[in-house]
Amino acid sequence: MDEFDVEEHASPELDDPVLVEGLPGVGHVGKLVAEHLLEEFEEAQLVRRVYSEHFPPQVAVDDDGTTTMACAEFHAVPTDGRDLLLLSGDHQATDAPGHYRLTDRFLDTADEFGVERAFALGGVPTGELIEEYAVVGAATDDDQVAELADAGVEFRDDEPAGGIVGVSGLLLGLGERRGLPTACLMGETSGYLVDPKSARAVLEVLQAVVDFDVGYEALEDRAEEMEAVIKRIQEMEQGSQAPNDEDLRYIG
Amino acid sequence: MDEFDVEEHASPELDDPVLVEGLPGVGHVGKLVAEHLLEEFEEAQLVRRVYSEHFPPQVAVDDDGTTTMACAEFHAVPTDGRDLLLLSGDHQATDAPGHYRLTDRFLDTADEFGVERAFALGGVPTGELIEEYAVVGAATDDDQVAELADAGVEFRDDEPAGGIVGVSGLLLGLGERRGLPTACLMGETSGYLVDPKSARAVLEVLQAVVDFDVGYEALEDRAEEMEAVIKRIQEMEQGSQAPNDEDLRYIG
Amino acid sequence: MDEFDVEEHASPELDDPVLVEGLPGVGHVGKLVAEHLLEEFEEAQLVRRVYSEHFPPQVAVDDDGTTTMACAEFHAVPTDGRDLLLLSGDHQATDAPGHYRLTDRFLDTADEFGVERAFALGGVPTGELIEEYAVVGAATDDDQVAELADAGVEFRDDEPAGGIVGVSGLLLGLGERRGLPTACLMGETSGYLVDPKSARAVLEVLQAVVDFDVGYEALEDRAEEMEAVIKRIQEMEQGSQAPNDEDLRYIG
Amino acid sequence: MDEFDVEEHASPELDDPVLVEGLPGVGHVGKLVAEHLLEEFEEAQLVRRVYSEHFPPQVAVDDDGTTTMACAEFHAVPTDGRDLLLLSGDHQATDAPGHYRLTDRFLDTADEFGVERAFALGGVPTGELIEEYAVVGAATDDDQVAELADAGVEFRDDEPAGGIVGVSGLLLGLGERRGLPTACLMGETSGYLVDPKSARAVLEVLQAVVDFDVGYEALEDRAEEMEAVIKRIQEMEQGSQAPNDEDLRYIG
Repeated sequence: MDEFDVEEHASPELDDPVLVEGLPGVGHVGKLVAEHLLEEFEEAQLVRRVYSEHFPPQVAVDDDGTTTMACAEFHAVPTDGRDLLLLSGDHQATDAPGHYRLTDRFLDTADEFGVERAFALGGVPTGELIEEYAVVGAATDDDQVAELADAGVEFRDDEPAGGIVGVSGLLLGLGERRGLPTACLMGETSGYLVDPKSARAVLEVLQAVVDFDVGYEALEDRAEEMEAVIKRIQEMEQGSQAPNDEDLRYIG
Repeated sequence: MDEFDVEEHASPELDDPVLVEGLPGVGHVGKLVAEHLLEEFEEAQLVRRVYSEHFPPQVAVDDDGTTTMACAEFHAVPTDGRDLLLLSGDHQATDAPGHYRLTDRFLDTADEFGVERAFALGGVPTGELIEEYAVVGAATDDDQVAELADAGVEFRDDEPAGGIVGVSGLLLGLGERRGLPTACLMGETSGYLVDPKSARAVLEVLQAVVDFDVGYEALEDRAEEMEAVIKRIQEMEQGSQAPNDEDLRYIG
Repeated sequence: MDEFDVEEHASPELDDPVLVEGLPGVGHVGKLVAEHLLEEFEEAQLVRRVYSEHFPPQVAVDDDGTTTMACAEFHAVPTDGRDLLLLSGDHQATDAPGHYRLTDRFLDTADEFGVERAFALGGVPTGELIEEYAVVGAATDDDQVAELADAGVEFRDDEPAGGIVGVSGLLLGLGERRGLPTACLMGETSGYLVDPKSARAVLEVLQAVVDFDVGYEALEDRAEEMEAVIKRIQEMEQGSQAPNDEDLRYIG
Repeated sequence: MDEFDVEEHASPELDDPVLVEGLPGVGHVGKLVAEHLLEEFEEAQLVRRVYSEHFPPQVAVDDDGTTTMACAEFHAVPTDGRDLLLLSGDHQATDAPGHYRLTDRFLDTADEFGVERAFALGGVPTGELIEEYAVVGAATDDDQVAELADAGVEFRDDEPAGGIVGVSGLLLGLGERRGLPTACLMGETSGYLVDPKSARAVLEVLQAVVDFDVGYEALEDRAEEMEAVIKRIQEMEQGSQAPNDEDLRYIG
């Protein structure tokens, strides 16, 4: 195997496609959106699988007992509006140079499919449970900032405080250097739980800006499951066995 | 030295050989099986030694005072059934890209010897002492899953939860990409102790599937030693000086 | 992107320029000086931006909602004395080889602009709040040591005890190997707080040695803000909720 | 700078030279021996300085205020017996591949000077203060084991338990692969203190085996200083403010 190994599964023509990235991160917000899109659009088609020595050295065991090596996947997702080129997976790189190289390779694939706009999806941690799910934004240029602000995305001074890290951050950084308009949509989330409600807030913005239709049923189901989990935790907190922050981290 | 340094010791013709990997891991299960096979089959012959800058920078001191640099070894093990090409050693790689590159190199060596099937051996931690030693499986394809299930191997949803990591995991991942049917046999083990009983359970499956005969005496002796250790620990637990989990880790 | 990506913004002729490095470090002393110089000299001009896979994989979000990928910047700063080539940024490298390679690349850029002398600015931690801000020095050669000592810089046996690390340290190490006279000016600082007073002490030495004029107003304003912070901390220390060292680290 | 930068200072003809390595490690035993030899043999001459991006990114500040970048040094040390090629310095590599590559480069330099035998010097930690300082050995071949055992070096089963790590270990590992007879001499030491007595024990063996004469005064002086430190610690242990293991680590 080389540093990268890009497996071609299909190469359909896409109509003015938009890259949408939903790799793991805070509250698994981006990943939830990606999974939801794959579930809702049945015509979604695996087009590329990217293996790399920069991923963790591991295989996942699927329900049928077969294994899949750590990878990222691109799916072509035709919608009633613009087509999506969806980037999803279970891993980020294991080292800093690996993040740069992986993201660069992802952008190469986006280029191949004629992508001229990109969205990186993620969460921004607030540290507390949330009632109203705002979506915070960042973008490579002023035009997108204006467009997204019109769509209800919030732009706040010094937020997220630590910048945007990992593949999401570098899609903006390296995207800008290639002249690819890229925006990051970050759903507010406690940071303690897998957060389908935050994912829904992000998806609603994406849908409005990219202009496609999608149902929310699967996300609503997951949100209800999480409500039950949160309720159980709150009851525990009032009881004697209060879980500490550590217990709360990434339940779901 | 280059990134890899493969020392050739012998190059016998092997009869339809099967790669069997037993590097260190949970409960040292795979390593115990590898050591046992080398002990039981006296005709086992060292054929390759692989040095690499991806191994820890260290030498072991042997009983005669001479040193051996960190390496992995391939032995040719003729059995009454198919021959084995046995991969053993004391180390995994020190970094993620190193795991990928080492495993790729190991598979190159397997290729040289005409290997057309591979088994990665390891343990799956249960967190508690075990009465009945099940063997959990994963494989690169459905045919092997079916064959192994017939041989009593268990395939369970979402187990092992974190996937299979290190060289064992990548043997499946990279093996699959080369078209090499590969399976992982993981003996249940507490995860706290070097576990010869788990190793025996794994070896019994391997023997049935690959079709060779081997005695179990050495593993039984080690199992008895471990029984004594466990008994001592249980007595300590009932006494005042209960050891904590840390103390229990990898006694043996 | 390659290992480095040097973006050219301008290439003005500089008059006998001096490289001045102010990347993040102890007390943010060097960074404060760099920021102050950029504020005071309005004609400062961005000439190069250096991106690298050795920087952390992240983008910063600016106040207008647009993003900037981790980078270091060179500004040409014309003064009434010698021109400055100012190196500033928010990051150091993420690994040891990266530090060497980045610093080497920075020196290449300094070469391009005809730099024949360099100053690395930083802080030296004392572990306690400071009344009189001494500036401690180190240099690549005896002549500079003598010159700086005349300018009031202190040279102390075995200080700083752990040597000088990161880009500042390597500017001296790699600078010396290129025949570039380089000195390090380290303002004493508690190590707990962003320290504008320490930055002022360093700047006063730099100004005297390089021979240029600059005002101190912005640093004085920041120093007053910090005084207020320190006072608040001291009041807390006398109260019941004394902050521990961890709380004190890098307030500002 | 490249991955390595070997600075040539002199290239004297050496008479049947022996490589002696004394880089930092347990109890600083090897480093103490190296420093002692440089002090005792006034004709010792710096012949090579090796810089590398695998060393920590730092410079040391010397007593005169000038800086030296992290490096390792080779000195030619003429004795009344065989000449020594002495490898000393303040650093090991920062990563596993770096250890392999550095050691390989060191052996290249030894080759240049016609070295046909090598000694790696270090300490072996016992965890308690020591009365009789044994020297434990390991070697690349049986002949050296026999020779060193005759000289009083002890060879013990499974000791040192974790093998020999870092440059010392790889000198044996990579040395053996080049056909260079190499031995490791490890002085027993508590592991808590810089240990001149352990260094003396190692030096006595080295002197006997390589056949040269050297005084011990400087080591005796340092040993007396350490005796005073130990006494102070023991008094503290009997008082109320017993230092914990952490306090004891590397005093000196």
